[in-house]
Amino acid sequence: MKSDVKDKPHDRMAAYLSEDMEAVSALIRERMASKHAPRIPEVTAHLVEAGGKRLRPMLTLAAARMCGYTGPYHVHLAATVEFIHTATLLHDDVVDESAQRRGRPTANLLWDNQSSVLVGDYLFARSFQLMTEPGSMPVMRILSNAAATIAEGEVLQLTAAQNLATDEAVYLQVVRGKTAALFSAATEVGGVIADAPEDQVRALFDYGDALGVAFQIVDDLLDYQGDTGATGKNVGDDFRERKLTLPVIKAVAKANAEERAFWTRTIEKGRQDEGDLDHALALLRKHDTLTATQRDAREWAEKAKKALTPLPDHELKDMLSDLADYVVSRIS
Amino acid sequence: MKSDVKDKPHDRMAAYLSEDMEAVSALIRERMASKHAPRIPEVTAHLVEAGGKRLRPMLTLAAARMCGYTGPYHVHLAATVEFIHTATLLHDDVVDESAQRRGRPTANLLWDNQSSVLVGDYLFARSFQLMTEPGSMPVMRILSNAAATIAEGEVLQLTAAQNLATDEAVYLQVVRGKTAALFSAATEVGGVIADAPEDQVRALFDYGDALGVAFQIVDDLLDYQGDTGATGKNVGDDFRERKLTLPVIKAVAKANAEERAFWTRTIEKGRQDEGDLDHALALLRKHDTLTATQRDAREWAEKAKKALTPLPDHELKDMLSDLADYVVSRIS
Repeated sequence: MKSDVKDKPHDRMAAYLSEDMEAVSALIRERMASKHAPRIPEVTAHLVEAGGKRLRPMLTLAAARMCGYTGPYHVHLAATVEFIHTATLLHDDVVDESAQRRGRPTANLLWDNQSSVLVGDYLFARSFQLMTEPGSMPVMRILSNAAATIAEGEVLQLTAAQNLATDEAVYLQVVRGKTAALFSAATEVGGVIADAPEDQVRALFDYGDALGVAFQIVDDLLDYQGDTGATGKNVGDDFRERKLTLPVIKAVAKANAEERAFWTRTIEKGRQDEGDLDHALALLRKHDTLTATQRDAREWAEKAKKALTPLPDHELKDMLSDLADYVVSRIS
Repeated sequence: MKSDVKDKPHDRMAAYLSEDMEAVSALIRERMASKHAPRIPEVTAHLVEAGGKRLRPMLTLAAARMCGYTGPYHVHLAATVEFIHTATLLHDDVVDESAQRRGRPTANLLWDNQSSVLVGDYLFARSFQLMTEPGSMPVMRILSNAAATIAEGEVLQLTAAQNLATDEAVYLQVVRGKTAALFSAATEVGGVIADAPEDQVRALFDYGDALGVAFQIVDDLLDYQGDTGATGKNVGDDFRERKLTLPVIKAVAKANAEERAFWTRTIEKGRQDEGDLDHALALLRKHDTLTATQRDAREWAEKAKKALTPLPDHELKDMLSDLADYVVSRIS
């Protein structure tokens, strides 16, 4: 992968879809307003304008355009997806007691947990208003199912994340819920609104699902090997928050008795001392789990690319394929 | 009003609608399940089975039956309304840092804030799944609008509740949002699913709106004059939580300089000492604001009863009328 910004596939997609993306931005600005409660657009703007890549709404637009859609409603669905994502971020930051998001202080820190919870609820409700507007029952079913799957994944994570019995299958369940469900719904509704044939809709779902899993695995990997500048996260945040992710799950599976005791103390019991993060990193290196996790991420990216096969030839198809490569290029 | 339990209008309605209410309970139990995250039904069951009166779903069933509906979907809509209500309660308890709800410890106390936020999100999503099932666009519009209005009312309350400039108009705005919006949506969708004529649907909306406002005013009044046994709340909770409600808003409007300073210190600045609640109660008595608030609640109940006029003669119509009287009888 070249590092030239112009070559980043999501930048190429954003340029290709720039008119649609502007329509999405305008709709988001319009719908995040509130006649009565100015706190709502304040909090939302803080997050929405923090410069996220808007990857998820772009996936919806790309899927719809690639399948030949010419109507106006892909914009509503893209905005719906972004509202669900934003609501999730607001609630996640409360749940994780986070202080930073996209390199800026979180809303729960700038305002309070109350505002984050309630403004998140408002955005959820707004997303449901938006998704009804195209009048498509299958679209509403897909997006409301995704919202339920996301919440279910987050609740599962609450109980699974600090439990050493959590294996790769449970991890995948959590990731499918908290991340991949919205990616796959984003691509799937693009195909559905375009009235694409069933095998193409299925292909779009599979692509979004695999891309979302790859994306989350990379995110979890960067928590142990990224640098703060590039990710806006500090190395070891997940360890400090006692969140079992794939690199540690793989290390636990290979742990001897002493190592197991270390993970039990630091993750399950949460008793962490100075030097524990370094020791954790040494164990990940000892069992080579960062490399194994990279390999998994690449496999999911390959799965995403392969899923695109039934879709018609299209510039956007090539960009989606490149996007899958790009997602995992951050770790190579 | 007689105090005989059998004469309580919501008990008569529950008896009249018992088959429907059982179907709603069964549907709620079915949909609060989660294949992957057992924490979800645990938390939900704690709240759902705590013996709430299920007033809101009953309103939907009553409206639909009164308008001659014979299909199955009023049950889905009633369950939708109860899920939205339950999600709101879970988030409210986090926002208010409450320790008790319906006479039992709150979910945020028994589990944690994280579970309350995320299980609330799950129930919101479940409610949206449910509301799509009847396949009625107007129903989805009404219920998703209500969800947005509820969240907007809650956010408005965040900023308005501790601001002495909050007048009766802003209070009404908050109450319409956080309480009446779900009552009016509950009754309105009952009429819509039954394909009732426009004037009857409007009447159902107006009834729910006025009943919801009366209900909330009474709730706020009981906070200052109820007894813990009857309400499950402690006298003065709203004062301690610095929540401006109608009795205090009326007292602030009549306050002399010294009294205003008292309200500024205790509500706006939140500096409360022993004896302050007693002094607040004395000021409410001095300006007779509890009586004035009672009068307002009764006017809203009358408005609710009058709204029923366009609806056809029906046993349920009489029960709804009695229900409006009953809601305010708790304060007489």
